[in-house]
Amino acid sequence: MTGPRYTPLAQSLPATVPFVGPETQERQRGAPFAARLGANENIFGPSPRAIEAMQRAASEIWMYGDPENHDLRAALAAHHGVQPDNIVVGEGIDGLLGYLVRLMVGPGDPVVTSEGAYPTFNYHVAGFGGVLHKVPYAGDHEDPQALFAKAAEVGAKLVYLANPDNPMGSWLKGADIVAAMQALPEDTLLVLDEAYVECAPDGTAVQVDADDPRLIRMRTFSKAYGMAGARVGYALGAPELIAAFNKVRNHFGMNRAAQAGALAALVDGEWLAHVQTEIATARTRLGEIARENGLIPLPSATNFVTIDCGKDGIFAKCVLDNLVASGIFVRMPFAEPHNRCIRVSCGPRADLDAFATALPAALAAARR
Amino acid sequence: MTGPRYTPLAQSLPATVPFVGPETQERQRGAPFAARLGANENIFGPSPRAIEAMQRAASEIWMYGDPENHDLRAALAAHHGVQPDNIVVGEGIDGLLGYLVRLMVGPGDPVVTSEGAYPTFNYHVAGFGGVLHKVPYAGDHEDPQALFAKAAEVGAKLVYLANPDNPMGSWLKGADIVAAMQALPEDTLLVLDEAYVECAPDGTAVQVDADDPRLIRMRTFSKAYGMAGARVGYALGAPELIAAFNKVRNHFGMNRAAQAGALAALVDGEWLAHVQTEIATARTRLGEIARENGLIPLPSATNFVTIDCGKDGIFAKCVLDNLVASGIFVRMPFAEPHNRCIRVSCGPRADLDAFATALPAALAAARR
Repeated sequence: MTGPRYTPLAQSLPATVPFVGPETQERQRGAPFAARLGANENIFGPSPRAIEAMQRAASEIWMYGDPENHDLRAALAAHHGVQPDNIVVGEGIDGLLGYLVRLMVGPGDPVVTSEGAYPTFNYHVAGFGGVLHKVPYAGDHEDPQALFAKAAEVGAKLVYLANPDNPMGSWLKGADIVAAMQALPEDTLLVLDEAYVECAPDGTAVQVDADDPRLIRMRTFSKAYGMAGARVGYALGAPELIAAFNKVRNHFGMNRAAQAGALAALVDGEWLAHVQTEIATARTRLGEIARENGLIPLPSATNFVTIDCGKDGIFAKCVLDNLVASGIFVRMPFAEPHNRCIRVSCGPRADLDAFATALPAALAAARR
Repeated sequence: MTGPRYTPLAQSLPATVPFVGPETQERQRGAPFAARLGANENIFGPSPRAIEAMQRAASEIWMYGDPENHDLRAALAAHHGVQPDNIVVGEGIDGLLGYLVRLMVGPGDPVVTSEGAYPTFNYHVAGFGGVLHKVPYAGDHEDPQALFAKAAEVGAKLVYLANPDNPMGSWLKGADIVAAMQALPEDTLLVLDEAYVECAPDGTAVQVDADDPRLIRMRTFSKAYGMAGARVGYALGAPELIAAFNKVRNHFGMNRAAQAGALAALVDGEWLAHVQTEIATARTRLGEIARENGLIPLPSATNFVTIDCGKDGIFAKCVLDNLVASGIFVRMPFAEPHNRCIRVSCGPRADLDAFATALPAALAAARR
């Protein structure tokens, strides 16, 4: 038997996963985590109205979701002051990044990102045969000038920039990104991942014409809206680009209850404000915990705090392993030199207390 | 501005949708449908235990779903008497077909299907540049001998066969498909879509070794399990092939509540048996309605009945349009010569009564 014939590209790909899930680690440990602070999930949860909407939708789950996502796109358009044809809804930003890369990137096509930026974007680029060119961070920040200069140098089809940044938690002013875009080659598309922007100070989101063909903005209900498990992301962009998603997307791919939940979450501004306050409180508390242990919390405009453990990647990995072994799920999705850090998600008092309790011993063991 | 640079393949693709959703038609009509019988959804709904599991999961939707789908795969493995590494779970069969085609099909690669078979498979093949070769049905049945002969003739990488068949509702004995596979080229993969198999007589599912590398079987929670809006499908195949999905799939693409719902639905055999009975009753009733109006219901092993309107495609389209205008959502996703038919999904008494009430006038108007 010769068996099925994969494409040359598929043959060349590793069977990989951008992130190992906490459930996998729990099965390996043989015990659940005491605190789930590693995936930048929002433990404060979604709006009670969103939960109610999803529960109500459960009994009508026999129906496929609306493949046009009409009602959600209409509400998002009103929310952002744009037209529905500026918006495509998809299975999380991960799903939308996959479709976007598929539309743009073929074997050998150049793409630019930062060394240490979002691995799932890289997964998609590699998955369609694209060639990644990486620029270093400027300190703890992404570096739009360097990204766009590299894009010009290599003729990039796409350049990826997250603002606020994951995994560093750092952020840039939207106006500074817009200014830097003057150097963006006119045939390079900026993929601006604003997954965490609802956790950031005013002025972090870019103010651009929704029809601007130079960029596409990625947004999600997974972070501030607390619905990671629902898989609802959306992209804002020029109508021609947004329409192109209809060539490749899984039209009936959206969960019907998730559509209803996102719609309910979007209109509950009060809950969003509540969560924003909770996140700010948790960031402050995480900073205190870090400092009490002689570590340096980096400033954050996200729902996590990146903590500099003060030594090298081997040390930080040892701290991380000790935390995980003691039941605290955290991650260090960093490239050098940022792998001196661990990343801890915001959460309620009890979760952060569990982290605070485990950290001293994890550090002491790492120092031995 | 030159704007973003799409791949040549993406440029060549039409912005298309395999099916127009009923919500779109309702918006166009300005009124909801009285009966939703066009998408082969299961109006009898999912197991109450599945609804309960999804409702419970709604409040923990802040967590991403397990990217390994561990618990659901383990339960499915036990259900089918196979190993978990024989199973990949994905965003409906539609999503899994997309991944499979991506793994196998590049520009110019030959793929075989039947004229009039599942359009979403064709959408994916075209989307990756594959070349579709179509064979006619044998009467109202798919024709494995002709499909596999065509696969040998063109050197097909994939050959698609749905059993039971959508849109005809017809079915083959699993043993006859296995026998026909002797003529399947050894490097052609059979994509056996068994979406409706839980609605079919014993002996319809193929009995093959789960490790057989010649075929991959597609299953879903959208039909007999009544969870179309949840987007949970799975594929059964040889471990090497199943593992290849990890190279390209959206690892965090599954809705967490949908995972929980599918798990609960799978173990509620009593509800499945109840639905199977309801579907059989509805098929009988749809047959009666057809005959009362001088039409011919085709035998069905699915949750729908294909009704031969006795004239040509123009006449059937006219009947369909009249039904839709009177508030009955039905479809005719057929190629010639089967476009003499309309396709009506099973449903509770009230829905079928609404169809029965609307049909005589729809026929009379079409005959005028």
